[in-house]
Amino acid sequence: MIEKDPYLLTPGPLTTSLTVKQAMLRDWGSWDGDFNGMTAQVCQRLLEAAGGEQSHVCVPVQGSGTFAVEAVLGTLIAPDSHTLVLMNGAYGKRIGQILDYLDRPYLSIDKGDYEPPRGDEVAAFLSAHPEVAQVVVVHCETSSGILNPIEEIAEVCEQAGTRLIIDSMSAFGALPVSVAALPCAALVSSANKCFEGVPGFGFAIIERSLLEGAQGRCHSLSLDLYEQWRYMEKNGQWRYTPPTHVVAAFLQALKEHEAEGGVAGRLTRYTRNRNRLVAGMRELGFQTLLADEWLSPIITTFLSPGASTFDFRQFYDEIKHQGFVIYPGKLTVTDSFRIGCIGQLFDEQMDDVISAVANACKNMGLTLPVPPPVLTPDNLKSD
Amino acid sequence: MIEKDPYLLTPGPLTTSLTVKQAMLRDWGSWDGDFNGMTAQVCQRLLEAAGGEQSHVCVPVQGSGTFAVEAVLGTLIAPDSHTLVLMNGAYGKRIGQILDYLDRPYLSIDKGDYEPPRGDEVAAFLSAHPEVAQVVVVHCETSSGILNPIEEIAEVCEQAGTRLIIDSMSAFGALPVSVAALPCAALVSSANKCFEGVPGFGFAIIERSLLEGAQGRCHSLSLDLYEQWRYMEKNGQWRYTPPTHVVAAFLQALKEHEAEGGVAGRLTRYTRNRNRLVAGMRELGFQTLLADEWLSPIITTFLSPGASTFDFRQFYDEIKHQGFVIYPGKLTVTDSFRIGCIGQLFDEQMDDVISAVANACKNMGLTLPVPPPVLTPDNLKSD
Repeated sequence: MIEKDPYLLTPGPLTTSLTVKQAMLRDWGSWDGDFNGMTAQVCQRLLEAAGGEQSHVCVPVQGSGTFAVEAVLGTLIAPDSHTLVLMNGAYGKRIGQILDYLDRPYLSIDKGDYEPPRGDEVAAFLSAHPEVAQVVVVHCETSSGILNPIEEIAEVCEQAGTRLIIDSMSAFGALPVSVAALPCAALVSSANKCFEGVPGFGFAIIERSLLEGAQGRCHSLSLDLYEQWRYMEKNGQWRYTPPTHVVAAFLQALKEHEAEGGVAGRLTRYTRNRNRLVAGMRELGFQTLLADEWLSPIITTFLSPGASTFDFRQFYDEIKHQGFVIYPGKLTVTDSFRIGCIGQLFDEQMDDVISAVANACKNMGLTLPVPPPVLTPDNLKSD
Repeated sequence: MIEKDPYLLTPGPLTTSLTVKQAMLRDWGSWDGDFNGMTAQVCQRLLEAAGGEQSHVCVPVQGSGTFAVEAVLGTLIAPDSHTLVLMNGAYGKRIGQILDYLDRPYLSIDKGDYEPPRGDEVAAFLSAHPEVAQVVVVHCETSSGILNPIEEIAEVCEQAGTRLIIDSMSAFGALPVSVAALPCAALVSSANKCFEGVPGFGFAIIERSLLEGAQGRCHSLSLDLYEQWRYMEKNGQWRYTPPTHVVAAFLQALKEHEAEGGVAGRLTRYTRNRNRLVAGMRELGFQTLLADEWLSPIITTFLSPGASTFDFRQFYDEIKHQGFVIYPGKLTVTDSFRIGCIGQLFDEQMDDVISAVANACKNMGLTLPVPPPVLTPDNLKSD
């Protein structure tokens, strides 16, 4: 049964190792020292991976990645403090949506579906809006699969004396980052992305001095990271019931991450997966949305072929039948689909998914190479 | 390794069956139809167990039980609506704390550590405070282990035309309840309690008409149960990444719950566990905090013996060494500890934990039966 499950070529939940899942075959008391030791190890390893041992703390929080993003924004942003949100897809927009709920003032630079926000425009914006106290950016915007240039954004933020908060949900663990060097006030991610754990909690790497000043600010008891942190510092326990099995799986995932060579090792494999995928798909006639320079090693958006017989639902089912779950597109301007390359995926799976796509095309009556996408002048820019 | 793990005699996370844990040995796509089918089954089974098929809907939410309670309060209680919170322990107090965060007006009847709130006093209070639109009560207050009389409270709420919200975290699944018959506007619980799943999400059974009117009210994007419900109704998916493995485990747990005879079957086993535990502990000289009438079949508070050599930390370690994790007390007035009887626990484990307690006492230099607790006149009432 387990062997026959489809591989998940999605941005997470993803295909995890059997050993990660087997770590969930035990029950732990959430009050017990054995479990507290696992939590401490998880936080310590994450802090090291983020390069924040001296300056930052790691605070996990129950729920999905969005819960963690909301927790960070609610805990760190004071009620009257102004925020600049850089948007180029669904996850950037979601940050704006959270700030709407929190009733915190914000401005945005919205680049549309897939254009990257650049350092110079952020610098110009901050110069024109000195009231902005923090910039929030999505590291890898999985809506399009673009890898946003966080280094140049961090640089201009530092020059302007503005804090930077990074939603690195789908990138942390595979893309090198140092919160101290960037610098970055807070970085948010979750268990079921590039560290290859299972879903159930998120976490934030937060500048200690910033968190220390955040008491009494959060809009939510459950999402109050100041209280979560204080409680954990004092008792070694999560403030409310943690997803014990998910935490155990994540600790195992962190060990396997280390064994693969840490962030560098994982980046190598994911990049190789992405290159193999993109080359193979291009050979079949598919076009990527983005120019090579902006492709992330996480997930790639392909434009749907310009054929009247191409139907995503059928395409999805044909490919799933061959053992792979792919992802629908999220662009507003043109039809597309996405294929991820993170998780327990290697050369064999990338080659097999190309074959599966080729078979699906044939079954749908498409001759290879598939016809190019139908594009209007406005809907594709290579930047 | 698995066989040697201690049994968890705690109010959850608890000891689950191996088959429940084995359901986590697969990865699911959160967008995929296979997983959506599991979510739908979970919700349908919960709705049936709560007797709410005609009138209520089931909305799951990521995070711990407290996240679910906060989500219900934030989604259902309008900003200027008045609430009466019935408190007799930590979980009742936590409801007040959530309402403080939400800045919603509330009054409380605080019965202290372990006295039950009674129907007549709630009726009198509601009569004196006609502005109260909803009453919130904890079903089983695990701080003391008391089973609160929700039927008589529901009756007076109905008479007063006041909505009732029940935090049934540690009771639902083992205590019979019908949200339609009580009636009850919302009932909240979580995956890792009497249904014997693993922790990672909670859920609420909410009166459909009440939820329909709750758009735009919640203080939190992540905890907005109106949006979660609407999204799930439309797409069959959770709004944000669900804890896929935990959901799979819970579906398996629900099947095993049904196989045991549903709520009635589970209540029978837990009651038997509790009776065996209390009888055995009393034989060793331990006293329960509560009179028999108020003992829940979930967890029991025992008063610490009045001996200078009794140290809970050592007691805990001695018992853990013999294969059982027990729980510290949560009373403000006297030293105590708690032993749970929910989860995969049967006669054998209840007998063995009694032996483990007896051994622990001997190792701590206590002669059996242990000396009675030291009580001041105020700190123990049998009601």
